[in-house]
Amino acid sequence: MSVMYNRVALIGLGLIASSMFWAIKRAGVAGEVTGYARSSGTRDVAREIGLCDRVFDTAADAVEGADLIVLCVPIGAMDATAAEISGTLKPGAVVTDVGSVKRAVITAVGPHVPDGVHFIPGHPLAGTEQSGPRSGFAELFDNRWCLLTPDGAEANEVKKLRTFWEALGSNVDEMDADHHDLVLAVTSHTPHLIAYTMVGVADDLSRVTDTEVVNFSAAGFRDFTRIAASDPTMWRDVFLNNKDATLEILGRFTEELFVLQRAIREGDGDHLHDYFTRTRAIRRGIIEAGQDTDVPNFGRNPVRK
Amino acid sequence: MSVMYNRVALIGLGLIASSMFWAIKRAGVAGEVTGYARSSGTRDVAREIGLCDRVFDTAADAVEGADLIVLCVPIGAMDATAAEISGTLKPGAVVTDVGSVKRAVITAVGPHVPDGVHFIPGHPLAGTEQSGPRSGFAELFDNRWCLLTPDGAEANEVKKLRTFWEALGSNVDEMDADHHDLVLAVTSHTPHLIAYTMVGVADDLSRVTDTEVVNFSAAGFRDFTRIAASDPTMWRDVFLNNKDATLEILGRFTEELFVLQRAIREGDGDHLHDYFTRTRAIRRGIIEAGQDTDVPNFGRNPVRK
Repeated sequence: MSVMYNRVALIGLGLIASSMFWAIKRAGVAGEVTGYARSSGTRDVAREIGLCDRVFDTAADAVEGADLIVLCVPIGAMDATAAEISGTLKPGAVVTDVGSVKRAVITAVGPHVPDGVHFIPGHPLAGTEQSGPRSGFAELFDNRWCLLTPDGAEANEVKKLRTFWEALGSNVDEMDADHHDLVLAVTSHTPHLIAYTMVGVADDLSRVTDTEVVNFSAAGFRDFTRIAASDPTMWRDVFLNNKDATLEILGRFTEELFVLQRAIREGDGDHLHDYFTRTRAIRRGIIEAGQDTDVPNFGRNPVRK
Repeated sequence: MSVMYNRVALIGLGLIASSMFWAIKRAGVAGEVTGYARSSGTRDVAREIGLCDRVFDTAADAVEGADLIVLCVPIGAMDATAAEISGTLKPGAVVTDVGSVKRAVITAVGPHVPDGVHFIPGHPLAGTEQSGPRSGFAELFDNRWCLLTPDGAEANEVKKLRTFWEALGSNVDEMDADHHDLVLAVTSHTPHLIAYTMVGVADDLSRVTDTEVVNFSAAGFRDFTRIAASDPTMWRDVFLNNKDATLEILGRFTEELFVLQRAIREGDGDHLHDYFTRTRAIRRGIIEAGQDTDVPNFGRNPVRK
């Protein structure tokens, strides 16, 4: 593929930015990739492992002359980061981000984007439970979705950014920022909160030891711990910045949980069986849509064919 | 390994029994394995794929002359199944089971076990989201735990059954039946109920389409759907038969969830960050105990090294 942006600046060098770097290099869609991280330790690691063609000590230096700027910092740091780079942005440049919440990013970043610079918020739905500059890999976005919430940004620039994400392996869709935040409250934010809660409960029980929880986790619990090992700062910011949608879905969740709890208490086996049968169908849909494999047991064991 | 039981009878031929068969053959610890399933369709499949050396049309015929009888039926079918085989059990034989709840199985099966037959309840903590006679594989129990709740059964026979499970790849531990049911409520039953609930909520929302839920599931939700795709009959019976412990842990869970919900509502980022940091430690414990791998993203993507 040919170069799409002469210079791409990655601001923040964690899992998503480092995966973007390797995916950009794999696709050959950028002339040069610059990078910046707030922590000098992260910048040192980036230089050591060749993450970014040039690593700068300030965000402003990293974005100077860049055609595409990708904000890869936690949601809570978006406002300050955007303020820092605002004066250095090149006219005609595109600013995008990878935050898990879109309305809050628009509110934080929008006011700092000068006239003549395009702002197209984005969110690649991809990740692992690992974080930091060493955690990235080029295949992270392959066959995953990237959602853009352009909200009136110039059509040609939106189209170009779509093609860029497709070159990194993604499928791309566009939607309204508020709808994005609701969809993600369902498919990501509430599941994470629930997983964190369940792991916290297990850790707190005095009648069941931590060793028992750990050793006997293969029967379901371990899959919650993987989700609940995600980056604490990122997730704090997600919940603080997608409060309304998360609380709405949490309300639905507890309502539904109480109905199932009553069915257990009253011994209503038909209700439970019907409910558990219905939820199987969604799983099939996810496998058919290529968003998971049907290899059993999470692919952790070899399978006899 | 040498033969430990001349004849092993597997009653019920789903995921666990079929995995036991292949693991028994791999280990060479049984002279012959007989099998029975209530459904003639399942028996046909078993005969077609060579699951069990001989498949019988009644449970009584399958257990006749057997030295080890393994009840692999849903908890709700334990009582009737035990009654069916009671008169055919050979003196000195060992009856065990693989049910996910132990107190209820003891209550259901115990009265049907004649004098001179040993009853040693068991529970291999292994499984996948798939079910049926074709879903088994020999490696299912490798490095997983099998819990026995012998409650006064003869020590020699308990020791022999331990060695049998070890030959199938398991680690083995013993505990009291009620404690087992509490531990499993934490590590398995409540996590499953929560996953089922979250998937049900997502399926029910009118403002988010099923297509959106499916396509955008990679950000956390898909891992809940895997758990929520488990066998509905098995899980109905688990909740009906481990009611007290599940309701106790559910109570703790909702209490904790409400505290986190309030922290979100009040914008208490410190509370959220502390909580999310604490839950990371358990994850590390599980990886160190060999109950999961640290391959990111569930091993679904190749990883750049």
